[in-house]
Amino acid sequence: MGPRPVAGPADGIEADYAELLVGDLHASLASPVSESMNFLNEIALRYPDAVSLAAGRPYEGYFDLDDLPRYLSLYRRHLAERLGGDEEGVRRTVLQYGRTKGVIHELVAEHLRLDEGIHADPQDLVVTVGCQEALYLTLRALRRDERDVLLAVAPSYVGVHGAAGLVDMTLVPVRGTADGIDLDDLVARIREIRARGLNPRACYVIPDFANPSGIRMSLETRRRLLRIAAEEDVLLLEDNPYGLFGDPDGPPTLKALDTAARVVYLGSFAKTGLPGARVGYVLAEQRVSDAHGSAGTLADQLAKVKSMLTVNTSPIAQAVIGGKLLAHGCSLREANVREIATYRANLTRMLDGLERRLGDVPGVSWNAPEGGFFLLLTVPFPAGDDLLEHCASTYQVLWTPVHHFYADTRPRNVMRLSFSHLRPEEIETGLDRLARFVRDQQQN
Amino acid sequence: MGPRPVAGPADGIEADYAELLVGDLHASLASPVSESMNFLNEIALRYPDAVSLAAGRPYEGYFDLDDLPRYLSLYRRHLAERLGGDEEGVRRTVLQYGRTKGVIHELVAEHLRLDEGIHADPQDLVVTVGCQEALYLTLRALRRDERDVLLAVAPSYVGVHGAAGLVDMTLVPVRGTADGIDLDDLVARIREIRARGLNPRACYVIPDFANPSGIRMSLETRRRLLRIAAEEDVLLLEDNPYGLFGDPDGPPTLKALDTAARVVYLGSFAKTGLPGARVGYVLAEQRVSDAHGSAGTLADQLAKVKSMLTVNTSPIAQAVIGGKLLAHGCSLREANVREIATYRANLTRMLDGLERRLGDVPGVSWNAPEGGFFLLLTVPFPAGDDLLEHCASTYQVLWTPVHHFYADTRPRNVMRLSFSHLRPEEIETGLDRLARFVRDQQQN
Repeated sequence: MGPRPVAGPADGIEADYAELLVGDLHASLASPVSESMNFLNEIALRYPDAVSLAAGRPYEGYFDLDDLPRYLSLYRRHLAERLGGDEEGVRRTVLQYGRTKGVIHELVAEHLRLDEGIHADPQDLVVTVGCQEALYLTLRALRRDERDVLLAVAPSYVGVHGAAGLVDMTLVPVRGTADGIDLDDLVARIREIRARGLNPRACYVIPDFANPSGIRMSLETRRRLLRIAAEEDVLLLEDNPYGLFGDPDGPPTLKALDTAARVVYLGSFAKTGLPGARVGYVLAEQRVSDAHGSAGTLADQLAKVKSMLTVNTSPIAQAVIGGKLLAHGCSLREANVREIATYRANLTRMLDGLERRLGDVPGVSWNAPEGGFFLLLTVPFPAGDDLLEHCASTYQVLWTPVHHFYADTRPRNVMRLSFSHLRPEEIETGLDRLARFVRDQQQN
Repeated sequence: MGPRPVAGPADGIEADYAELLVGDLHASLASPVSESMNFLNEIALRYPDAVSLAAGRPYEGYFDLDDLPRYLSLYRRHLAERLGGDEEGVRRTVLQYGRTKGVIHELVAEHLRLDEGIHADPQDLVVTVGCQEALYLTLRALRRDERDVLLAVAPSYVGVHGAAGLVDMTLVPVRGTADGIDLDDLVARIREIRARGLNPRACYVIPDFANPSGIRMSLETRRRLLRIAAEEDVLLLEDNPYGLFGDPDGPPTLKALDTAARVVYLGSFAKTGLPGARVGYVLAEQRVSDAHGSAGTLADQLAKVKSMLTVNTSPIAQAVIGGKLLAHGCSLREANVREIATYRANLTRMLDGLERRLGDVPGVSWNAPEGGFFLLLTVPFPAGDDLLEHCASTYQVLWTPVHHFYADTRPRNVMRLSFSHLRPEEIETGLDRLARFVRDQQQN
């Protein structure tokens, strides 16, 4: 902050304009993560006519603004019943300041039971401002000092790098594999961290259709991961925004398999509910104690952090999600029948389209996820931000350089392709343009 | 985290239950602030029949759930007009992921112009999850390392202690006075901080009807405060949740007087809009630069923090507040005509009621704010948590021990009384009980 002399009126207030230097602000603001998010948003704005194989947004085709009053009224009726007709209580619950942990916890617990086979005590849930706040609360609580370290599969969701950055928590990458995570590497990393006098607190994973890889972990990997967490005494942070968009007979969530309170489960309604509600949650049943004995559960501690961060999640927004849950008997799988079909059709179209256009190009390959929003395309050249810029301006198609998920700036030969929000014809056009770009690059 | 051996099935997963110690979690979780919030919430739950002179909630008498669809539909129509009838764009704006800085920024800027005489560039606004997130974003950005220090009038709103705790930012108290702040002490503290090699980044103030004191700063104090901020090169964080609930011909906000970008203005719609929307904002026009030159404004930096914390503020919740603004031509003073009258009548009733009941008791006095939600009552005994507990159980009336606003545990002879959410008869009953309690204590 350096004062800059400026000519101004005589009273002197104008004499010293406030100016700030990025270098005087928190380090997260100059980090590659922060630059990543900025760059990716900004390039989408600069090329509005480009087909975006970059944005991980849910499909908008079924959005209906008339759902809002309908959901609000369903929730209102439900609440009136629960409160024995106390209309003042209903008004207060939806419109006044409210419970820090949220007001739709029982409906969320019922959804978890129905759709995920997770038996949650509603008191162990904290309803949050999207899953990102849930992640922040968890990392803020677990990061006591500079010795506390987070592990995460590399490459990982940009948001986990972002939240870790806000609490100055070191993130140690664990090798990713075709099955999601290299468990030997995980154990080696944990022991290495401990050998350096540091505390490996938790490992962040997206077991179902990961962002960015699209990979779903096998049942065997899940079981081994839980065993390692118990043996090595770390928590698992399970993030599950895409699990419903796949085979319902797939492997259970880590949380459903967890019998030793090793898993903190991070939930999102952005993809299965409505992104505009910004409602997510965290299930944290872990027992916490202090010098006097029990201090409740980790959820109680996360609620304390939340009371200092956002106070509570908008009960109006919660009522919208509550109403959507009520409209479908608390099953989000049922609420998303059309969406699930759309995402699966898009995935098939992507895989077929890539095969048709790029199947014969040497050095080009891709993985074939069984659900979710994303896949990874490997190309025979480093696909970084400069090349994305070139591709956007010349070929009018966007994708995400995978280095953003490593929180660094080194281009790698991999790009993330998303297909969740596109119409069939947009996928075809996008792939046409992408294939032309890849072939042109490969010939250079 | 200590593993606890537990008998369980043979596969070993159950062998090591996760358990956590508060001492292994972030320090903010064991701080007096965190304990304060817990204690105050919990005592209100334990004595539901007590009259609460403690809760700082807005009056509920005018709450109407039918306002929600009405506000949503007003905002929807407004947006359709702005987007030239693009219904898909309207749906996307309200229901999809959205702009990090928010979507009602232009309406908020218009409200600031009309009600506060603040001329804000809408691009310098970040719409937040209540004012508490705005405070967190600002402190997170300004706190680079352990040398960065925040100043705040003592006693101060609990939430500023809470947000500072989350970013490990030291808060240095500045002496409060009957005019709000001891400016000589402010200068002395700033220089003392610098002399210790630390950086005084900002001073947090509520110039209008402060929480907890109810004090409104004079125009002269405001001008001197701005001059000091410029001369000593610190920012002022102006928090203004109650400014509208007072004489409209009172002194302007610091921000309206600020010609040197010294003020970061923190706004809340919890009291003037709807608490259940959880919408607030921060106006941060300060220029920021990096090695390459301009890096935009502080608002742009705060948006980066927000993208890692809550991504964006629910556009559905924003649409509710946007609709309320539209319903009243963007004037919240107009929207709150009934509320303003109610709060002023409550204030008068409190002051008269205290005079009638406690005017003759030695050692008992109170201040007489001209608006807002709170006043301070001085009593001839230390009024701490134990005494509150006794008062709640025996006299069925709640108040707030002022030590909570000092973020410590030392009882002082002062209690905060709030009167914002009470009906006239509740005020009378509450004061009857409080007067009995004070007289009984004073005779002991």
